Amino acid sequence: MLRNWSVFLSPNDIEEIHNTSMKLLANGGVEFPDDEAVAVFKGRGFKTDGHRVYFSEEQVMGALETVPAQFTIHARNPDKDVTVGDGEPVFAPAFGAPFLVDPDVGKRAPTMEDYHNLAKLAHALPNQDLSGHLMVEPGDVPAGTAYPSTSSGHRLRMLHASMVHSDKPFMGSAEGKIGARHTMKMATILFGEEVRERPVTIGLINSLSPLGYSREMLAALMEYARWRQPVIIAALVMAGSTGPITLAGVLMQQNAELLAGITLTQLISAGTPVIYGSTSTNIDMKTGALAIGSPELSLVVAATAQMAHHYGLPCRSGGALTDANSPDAQAGFESMLGLLTTVNSGVDFVLHAAGILSSYLAFSYEKFVLDDEMCGMVRRFRRGIAVTPETLAYDIIAKVGPGGSFLMEPHTVKRCRSEFWQPVVCNREGLEAWQAGERQDAVARAHQRWQKLLAEHEDPPLDATTARQLQAFVAEH
Amino acid sequence: MLRNWSVFLSPNDIEEIHNTSMKLLANGGVEFPDDEAVAVFKGRGFKTDGHRVYFSEEQVMGALETVPAQFTIHARNPDKDVTVGDGEPVFAPAFGAPFLVDPDVGKRAPTMEDYHNLAKLAHALPNQDLSGHLMVEPGDVPAGTAYPSTSSGHRLRMLHASMVHSDKPFMGSAEGKIGARHTMKMATILFGEEVRERPVTIGLINSLSPLGYSREMLAALMEYARWRQPVIIAALVMAGSTGPITLAGVLMQQNAELLAGITLTQLISAGTPVIYGSTSTNIDMKTGALAIGSPELSLVVAATAQMAHHYGLPCRSGGALTDANSPDAQAGFESMLGLLTTVNSGVDFVLHAAGILSSYLAFSYEKFVLDDEMCGMVRRFRRGIAVTPETLAYDIIAKVGPGGSFLMEPHTVKRCRSEFWQPVVCNREGLEAWQAGERQDAVARAHQRWQKLLAEHEDPPLDATTARQLQAFVAEH
Repeated sequence: MLRNWSVFLSPNDIEEIHNTSMKLLANGGVEFPDDEAVAVFKGRGFKTDGHRVYFSEEQVMGALETVPAQFTIHARNPDKDVTVGDGEPVFAPAFGAPFLVDPDVGKRAPTMEDYHNLAKLAHALPNQDLSGHLMVEPGDVPAGTAYPSTSSGHRLRMLHASMVHSDKPFMGSAEGKIGARHTMKMATILFGEEVRERPVTIGLINSLSPLGYSREMLAALMEYARWRQPVIIAALVMAGSTGPITLAGVLMQQNAELLAGITLTQLISAGTPVIYGSTSTNIDMKTGALAIGSPELSLVVAATAQMAHHYGLPCRSGGALTDANSPDAQAGFESMLGLLTTVNSGVDFVLHAAGILSSYLAFSYEKFVLDDEMCGMVRRFRRGIAVTPETLAYDIIAKVGPGGSFLMEPHTVKRCRSEFWQPVVCNREGLEAWQAGERQDAVARAHQRWQKLLAEHEDPPLDATTARQLQAFVAEH
Repeated sequence: MLRNWSVFLSPNDIEEIHNTSMKLLANGGVEFPDDEAVAVFKGRGFKTDGHRVYFSEEQVMGALETVPAQFTIHARNPDKDVTVGDGEPVFAPAFGAPFLVDPDVGKRAPTMEDYHNLAKLAHALPNQDLSGHLMVEPGDVPAGTAYPSTSSGHRLRMLHASMVHSDKPFMGSAEGKIGARHTMKMATILFGEEVRERPVTIGLINSLSPLGYSREMLAALMEYARWRQPVIIAALVMAGSTGPITLAGVLMQQNAELLAGITLTQLISAGTPVIYGSTSTNIDMKTGALAIGSPELSLVVAATAQMAHHYGLPCRSGGALTDANSPDAQAGFESMLGLLTTVNSGVDFVLHAAGILSSYLAFSYEKFVLDDEMCGMVRRFRRGIAVTPETLAYDIIAKVGPGGSFLMEPHTVKRCRSEFWQPVVCNREGLEAWQAGERQDAVARAHQRWQKLLAEHEDPPLDATTARQLQAFVAEH
């Protein structure tokens, strides 16, 4: 197995980052534009000034003590429970893409039908551990609902799609208090009252860099914490725009943002599972665009994991990230730089493990399939090499000797179906066969694969009462 | 900077691999089908039996003592000298591809014109440190030469192309004694008699797995060692075919092969620079084809580097390797898995850093350009994050405060052109612009780039006498 995580920061670097962010939290503070949140801080003796909250090192470190180092998100199929923080990375699909990119037409608006397709694929793909949420933002859902947020229709249908098409754990909505409540209610239908006793979903809370949180995110954060359901607290500091241009400063600023948010979860409900998260990166200085395929992103991923480990917190970062607009070679190598670094760094929870393109703006069916294959590759890679007398194979090598062949040795034959990682989409047909055939590229192969997976999909069994109640909840709201 | 290399083997694993290969060298031996080589071993007290040579641990470890941990390959432009073993990876182009793959026609036979083009591109590409050798095997060179090997024409023209189109260090030929001698003679024209005093090229010697060397390679090895010019001794054990199916056994077998070859270099000329090399990997058990984009290859790369470090030897392994037949997403992510692992593992010399496709069977102009960009990315990645009061930027963050922007801060403006890695081929134009434009993919962009580089190429200055002598040597042989 991988014995050393990729390490870029020295112990002294970590100490400097920590100390400087403590100074920032104490002197500059963080903006929490929600009276309830400020009241929670005030009630526990934190210095506040309007919506600005100030933190002493003692207060922050005290709050971190109750964060679990490890927790399990339960699935409706117990075989698919996932544990966060046990050293193995958990992979979840891309999140929040406003567009789709198709091979033939390029950019297009996602529909609710796409969402159903993607939920089914998330269920089918062997290396996605969660069924995701908000993989794309469907644009064709009728807006009229009983709730003030016009996105209620979207949200409920997406949650419902993940719950019925898959028995993997689902991600929850963090679109304000209402998104969180809908999630908890639907989770209660699915799991019963035990929802209050164990994690069954996870929400994504983003800070509002620099040094704040939005009202909507705070409301969701507090609701998740009240239900003791896990949240990722994540920063997306853009170096040179919403944070300093230097990566050390980005790490320091995001550390202040994250620890402030994590502290709030523990004040509301000590022991709430919470993940230290980041996808901070640079902006491209020529175009001003976010650069998520950059080497700087991967450096921030590795350093973020080191900071999380320093605090003993589970970590979320990275993924199969790219600025390319189609699943081409650039998408391939940028995504692998991000994903391999994520896994090499000991990141526990990997959102955007598959499917994203265009600096988070687009989802691609083909890339979903290709990235899932990458997830399988890096999983195999991480397991490493077993060194035993059996695998060292001294007797076999000595017997075969110079110039011989191992192909027909029992040691080979016995292992020939199981020893190596087997690709599904990657092409190993060889140059001659490829040239003689249709000269398919990875996109063509991936396209065939998702169409096949979709055609073969069957919803996993769900008892009729639960199914009816879920359906009714969606219809009513 | 990267502080921890990727580590998969425990100290005990390394010890087991070492001990088992010592046992294999002592009891099974290695085949050296060359009377001169056997005579060298015999003369130094090694046990031999026909062409079989047996090694004691003491003999092997004694020979390793004289291998330099670090050496410099001199270029005809001293600014382009490269040092092997100083912790920075040295990148060299792909090697030995019998075919080219073009975007429009797929597979085709390379011509000598292609070779000139590739030598010019190797010169132009910013992250290739050597101009390479045998990047492709041109098929259109008239065979008639004064030498028995019909490939003399190829070889001389290729060496000549690298010498005149580039002032980076060139790789030498290891096609038998004659290939090595041609290399040394042409190097002598270029550098004068100092060739005998310092490294000016490097040759690639492959073992013949399992547990042997070919006559041709042995002759080249001995010639390089007599001239004290550096060689890579490399194994390409195919797990399940020319080696055991288990990776630990592959590492153990290749260790025996490599140490035997390295020992010979030092017996011939103690102090000859030599690199411990491997591109061993698995075969695909469905097709029997070599799998160089596999996670197994990357594991062998990382473990090979650990073994080389254990012996204090410079290491060659990995590269931008793929089994894909065109520069598609698969080529991108497989190549990055290999290249990033190579760099993360502390490999010193990276052959195939750019250009290869199809399990070593094809070279691609477009992939050459794309992989060079990847080399730049992983170089930047490796440098890591500077943590200083200046980069932590406390004052700036405190001043900007919650909700502010860093875009116009002097701290940002001052660094905005230099702080981040800048892509040349990678697309960061954004989804809207891409959709509105020609929707180019990475191959289209890379195609434009190499055509531009080629159009702009000028041979670096070379004095007229040397140029004439080189030309005459090629014409005469």
